[in-house]
Amino acid sequence: MSIRIGIMGYGNLGRGVECAIKHNPDMELKAVFTRRDPGALSVLTEGVKVYSAEDAPSMKDEIDVLILCGGSATDLPEQTPRMAEYFNVVDSFDTHAKIPEHFEAVDRTASDHGYVAVISVGWDPGMFSLNRLYANAILPGGKDYTFWGKGVSQGHSDAVRRIPGVKDARQYTIPVESALEAVRSGSQPELSTRQKHTRECFVVAEEGADKEAIKEAIVTMPNYFADYDTAVHFISEEELLRDHAGIPHGGFVIRTGNTGMKDEHSHVIEYSLKLDSNPEFTSSVLAAYARAAYRLSREGAKGCKTVFDIAPAYLSPEDGAFLRKHML
Amino acid sequence: MSIRIGIMGYGNLGRGVECAIKHNPDMELKAVFTRRDPGALSVLTEGVKVYSAEDAPSMKDEIDVLILCGGSATDLPEQTPRMAEYFNVVDSFDTHAKIPEHFEAVDRTASDHGYVAVISVGWDPGMFSLNRLYANAILPGGKDYTFWGKGVSQGHSDAVRRIPGVKDARQYTIPVESALEAVRSGSQPELSTRQKHTRECFVVAEEGADKEAIKEAIVTMPNYFADYDTAVHFISEEELLRDHAGIPHGGFVIRTGNTGMKDEHSHVIEYSLKLDSNPEFTSSVLAAYARAAYRLSREGAKGCKTVFDIAPAYLSPEDGAFLRKHML
Repeated sequence: MSIRIGIMGYGNLGRGVECAIKHNPDMELKAVFTRRDPGALSVLTEGVKVYSAEDAPSMKDEIDVLILCGGSATDLPEQTPRMAEYFNVVDSFDTHAKIPEHFEAVDRTASDHGYVAVISVGWDPGMFSLNRLYANAILPGGKDYTFWGKGVSQGHSDAVRRIPGVKDARQYTIPVESALEAVRSGSQPELSTRQKHTRECFVVAEEGADKEAIKEAIVTMPNYFADYDTAVHFISEEELLRDHAGIPHGGFVIRTGNTGMKDEHSHVIEYSLKLDSNPEFTSSVLAAYARAAYRLSREGAKGCKTVFDIAPAYLSPEDGAFLRKHML
Repeated sequence: MSIRIGIMGYGNLGRGVECAIKHNPDMELKAVFTRRDPGALSVLTEGVKVYSAEDAPSMKDEIDVLILCGGSATDLPEQTPRMAEYFNVVDSFDTHAKIPEHFEAVDRTASDHGYVAVISVGWDPGMFSLNRLYANAILPGGKDYTFWGKGVSQGHSDAVRRIPGVKDARQYTIPVESALEAVRSGSQPELSTRQKHTRECFVVAEEGADKEAIKEAIVTMPNYFADYDTAVHFISEEELLRDHAGIPHGGFVIRTGNTGMKDEHSHVIEYSLKLDSNPEFTSSVLAAYARAAYRLSREGAKGCKTVFDIAPAYLSPEDGAFLRKHML
C-alpha cells in the first residue's frame, strides 16, 4: 500500500513535491489543498483533485502525511501547528532564528493529537544542518564554514525589484573561489562577509529610469548588499526571461579540524550541492522525510522532530537487511 | 559523569581512539586491553592501565563502551560478538561483503545480553555509507559513484611487500580527475575500474633485486593492479621513511539525479573527505558512535545497529534544544 500524500500550497514547492512523488513508487498524491479558488487550479497529476485549504481537516483519514508547501514568513508558523492536529506533517520552515519557537508550537499540537511532525526539512536547514552536526561530532574543536551558491536568492531578487525604476530583477549569490580554497587548506581562516560571497544582479529597468541611481540603491542597500561586492548588469526583459528563468542554487558545508595527541593531523570534511532547481530539490528532501514521518507514526511515535532526530534508515524505501548489504 | 571508554587492541586505530577521547571532554579512557604482554605496553594517557584482553569481561561494570580496534579479517568477527556479552561495543568492521553475517552474529549476543553494538563505523563503511543512503533517498533513480584517495591502501602496500626482492613499499590509490569531472557534470557516465582510479607504488628493492621483474609482478598482479594503470617508482629506504611515513586517505561520494515531471532538472550531491591520518579519522568517528551507543543503551535500547539506524543527534554531546538553535 502506498503512502498517501497531501500537498498544502501549490507554488514552486508544491509542484516540486508533486514531481517528487512521481519519482517515488511507494507514494501516491492524494489531494492538493489551496487557499486560492480550487476550481481555478489544475495540477499535473491525472486524477488528483484540488480542494480548499479549509477542507483539509475533513480528509484526515485519507491522507498519511500532509506536506506543507507555504512560506516561512507567515504561512508555516500558523499552518504547521494547526495541521498537526489532523495529520502527520512535514514542512520546510527555514527562518533559522525562529526554529526553536516553531518547534515548540508544532510539538505541542503534534504531541497532543498523536501525530508526527518534521520541521525545517530541505537543504539549509536540512541536509546542510545534518552535515554540520555529523562533522562537529567527528571533529570537535574544528571550525565550520557554510557557503551558498552559485544560486538565485529570492529574497535579494525581491529587494532589488522593490527599487523605484526596476521592472524585474534576478540576484545570484556566488561563493568566492579563493575563500573556498583557503578553507579547504585547513588553515581555518577568519573570513568576513565580503570575503566569502559576491553578489550579481541582472536588472531590467523601466523605460527612462535612472540606471546610475538604481545601481547606487542596490550596492548601498543595508543588510542585503552593502557588506558585499556587488556587480549590477542592466539587461532587456527578453534576456532576463531567456537566460535567467531557472532557480538554480547550491552551496558548500565544510568543517576542518585536527586529530592526534598534538593536533598534528588535519582533516577536511566537505559536503556540496549543485542544484538546477532549488524548489524541486527541497521538495525531494521533503518527500523522503514524509516517508520517515509515515513510518515513525506507524511505530507509535508522536511529536515534533527535525532531521537530527530521525535515523537515516527511515528515509529509505528499502529495509535494514537490504541497506546493510548494498549501501553500507 | 563522563562516558567510560575501553579500548581493545592498541595499534594505529587504538591509539587513534585514545587521541579522539582526549578531544571529547565528556569521555574518559578507562582501560586498554591487549593480546600482547600488558607489561610491555605503555599508553599515551597518564594513569591509564593496560590489561590482558582476557581480563576484559571482569571489568564490565567499569566500562560504558568498549571500542574494538582489531582487524576485520580475523579479530572482529570473533571479538565483537563475544565482547557484546559484557559491554556496549563499537567496531569498524569493513569487509563489505561480510557485513550481513557479522551483523547477525553481533545482534544475537548483544540482544541476548542487553547491550548496544554498533558495527562498521568509520568512513567507508560509515560516513560514505550514510551519504549514499541520504542521497539515494533524495534522488531516487539517480546514480552513485564512490572514489577513493588520494591515499595509502594498506592491503595493496602489503601485496607489493610480499613480492620477492621487495624490502618495503607504499601504495597510493588516486582518483582520476577527469572521471570526477565527468561525474559532476551530471552525465552519469559508465566508468571502468581503470577509468576511475590510478595506482602509484613507491618501492624499496632489496640490494641486487631485479627491478624490472618486480615492476612486472606489480602491474600484472590480478585483482590488485592488473585492472589499473599503475606507476612504479623505486626509491631508497630513507626516502620512503621521509616522504611516505603518513597514512593519508580520503575520497568522494557523488550522486547525480534528476527531478521534474520530465526529469528536466539535474542535481549533484557530493561528499568528500581529505584526511591526513586515516586511522585517526576513523577513530574519531568511532568515538562519536561510542557516545551514541552509550546514550541509546541508557534509554534501554539493545542489539546490533549500524550508522543507518542511529539518529544523528545521538552523536552530539549537545542536547536537542542547543542543536536546533545553533546547527539547524
